[in-house]
Amino acid sequence: MTKIISVDETVNGIREDLKEWSSKFLSVHGRMPSLVSIIIGDSKEADVYAQSKVRSGRRIGVEVTARNIDPDLGQKKIEDEIRKLSDDSRIDGIILENPVPKELNYISLLSCISPLKDVDCMTPYNQGLISMKSQIVLPATAAAVDQILKENFPEVRDVAIINRSVVVGKPLSMILLNRDCTVTVCHSKTRDLRKKCASAEAVVVAVGHENFLTRDYVTDNSVVIDVGINSTQNGIKGDADFDSLNGFVRAITPVPGGVGKLTSIKIFQNLKLLMDRSA
Amino acid sequence: MTKIISVDETVNGIREDLKEWSSKFLSVHGRMPSLVSIIIGDSKEADVYAQSKVRSGRRIGVEVTARNIDPDLGQKKIEDEIRKLSDDSRIDGIILENPVPKELNYISLLSCISPLKDVDCMTPYNQGLISMKSQIVLPATAAAVDQILKENFPEVRDVAIINRSVVVGKPLSMILLNRDCTVTVCHSKTRDLRKKCASAEAVVVAVGHENFLTRDYVTDNSVVIDVGINSTQNGIKGDADFDSLNGFVRAITPVPGGVGKLTSIKIFQNLKLLMDRSA
Repeated sequence: MTKIISVDETVNGIREDLKEWSSKFLSVHGRMPSLVSIIIGDSKEADVYAQSKVRSGRRIGVEVTARNIDPDLGQKKIEDEIRKLSDDSRIDGIILENPVPKELNYISLLSCISPLKDVDCMTPYNQGLISMKSQIVLPATAAAVDQILKENFPEVRDVAIINRSVVVGKPLSMILLNRDCTVTVCHSKTRDLRKKCASAEAVVVAVGHENFLTRDYVTDNSVVIDVGINSTQNGIKGDADFDSLNGFVRAITPVPGGVGKLTSIKIFQNLKLLMDRSA
Repeated sequence: MTKIISVDETVNGIREDLKEWSSKFLSVHGRMPSLVSIIIGDSKEADVYAQSKVRSGRRIGVEVTARNIDPDLGQKKIEDEIRKLSDDSRIDGIILENPVPKELNYISLLSCISPLKDVDCMTPYNQGLISMKSQIVLPATAAAVDQILKENFPEVRDVAIINRSVVVGKPLSMILLNRDCTVTVCHSKTRDLRKKCASAEAVVVAVGHENFLTRDYVTDNSVVIDVGINSTQNGIKGDADFDSLNGFVRAITPVPGGVGKLTSIKIFQNLKLLMDRSA
């Protein structure tokens, strides 16, 4: 029997917590906690991300504002804009949505966000704190995967991650190391990926390809954490071949409704963590 | 036949380079490049580290000054001191030597070092840049191991690291990932350490125990990078059982004279990299 991992209880718990917090904040400060989502240029993708946060914010009691910035302002003026938002005491959190036009220096823009408003954990400073085991926040996806593993399989200590990005693979590997897991970080250039995955107790897959992770990569003792969100003709699908793995592996997260669901609310949990720290 | 990896040529090359750079700097600026090594309290260990940098600096043409700070000044005043050094245009690089008294907040102290003077790559900002693949400098030991692997075994792509610290394991794993290696990070809590090590092409060991890495952990195709520096009755020894591995593995670094030798000069290479960036 494969366990289909549900995040519903966890997500509901976090949401109730956040609602209580935001309504307390409102009554004390006369305004809702506020999050600004910066979109540079007109990217449909960035807009979708921002609008989804606006909707989630409404349910929780956080005011999320999408702020469009004209890329033609140029690097320096955009940095000034972001610094102004960082200095604005009425703004509690800031996210720079992806993609950012390529002619701009992304890292320099990120560095203008105050680490204490960095709900996405994308400033170099906050990324470095993870390495130093002193983080206040974590990138939402990495935090979601870690929480799912910790809550459901605290005994799992050997994890393979197929992803080496700054939002999933790298921070997740450090978080897992910090709590005594052994971690193998794999990617598109990994030679014996199947062997690496099959020899771990849990496999975290984030490759962006539907049905990528098949039975060849796992054993009947594997826990599969599917980070993939692929739009297909049959709706949103993960990176794991769910139908073939279900009934074979030890446990698996569903897509949609698994990692993604927990990830969306993590941004708001980060907002609370940062505001508690600033207070 | 086991290859005993020599770093001599590499180290000599870097040293000649640095000498030329420092003497040019002296002739243009009327002073040597300068590095301040901060010692908080009276730790013999910190003092040894600082004095060894003073000596290395002399050979290269960099003025290294040990600066003692009284821990009784307290967190705030010590932070002010470090900030003053960071703002001083006659000081090009700053290192905070370990150990730092436990009653002080180490991360906060580190954060007062300007990332552009952080020759040890220990500020959260510079650590985060590694994760983001945008680093200017790297922690010296991690940089040394990476360079040895890259120069001698560019084809090696599967590396096991026995260390998860912020100076070796974590940054090294990210550097290796950034150049397409697959990395398994292991530590004292790793369950099947021998298997993890034996299935990699290279093993980086930094555990602080003489003769820790024996034949059980490797194959005749293994490259062993020994980061250990253990003071024993028989002199300085590494973490690998050198005598038993020599003749068995593919290659191994000697201790002393291997990783440590390259590491010492990396601090000064970092100084140059940061000064080039600031210029």
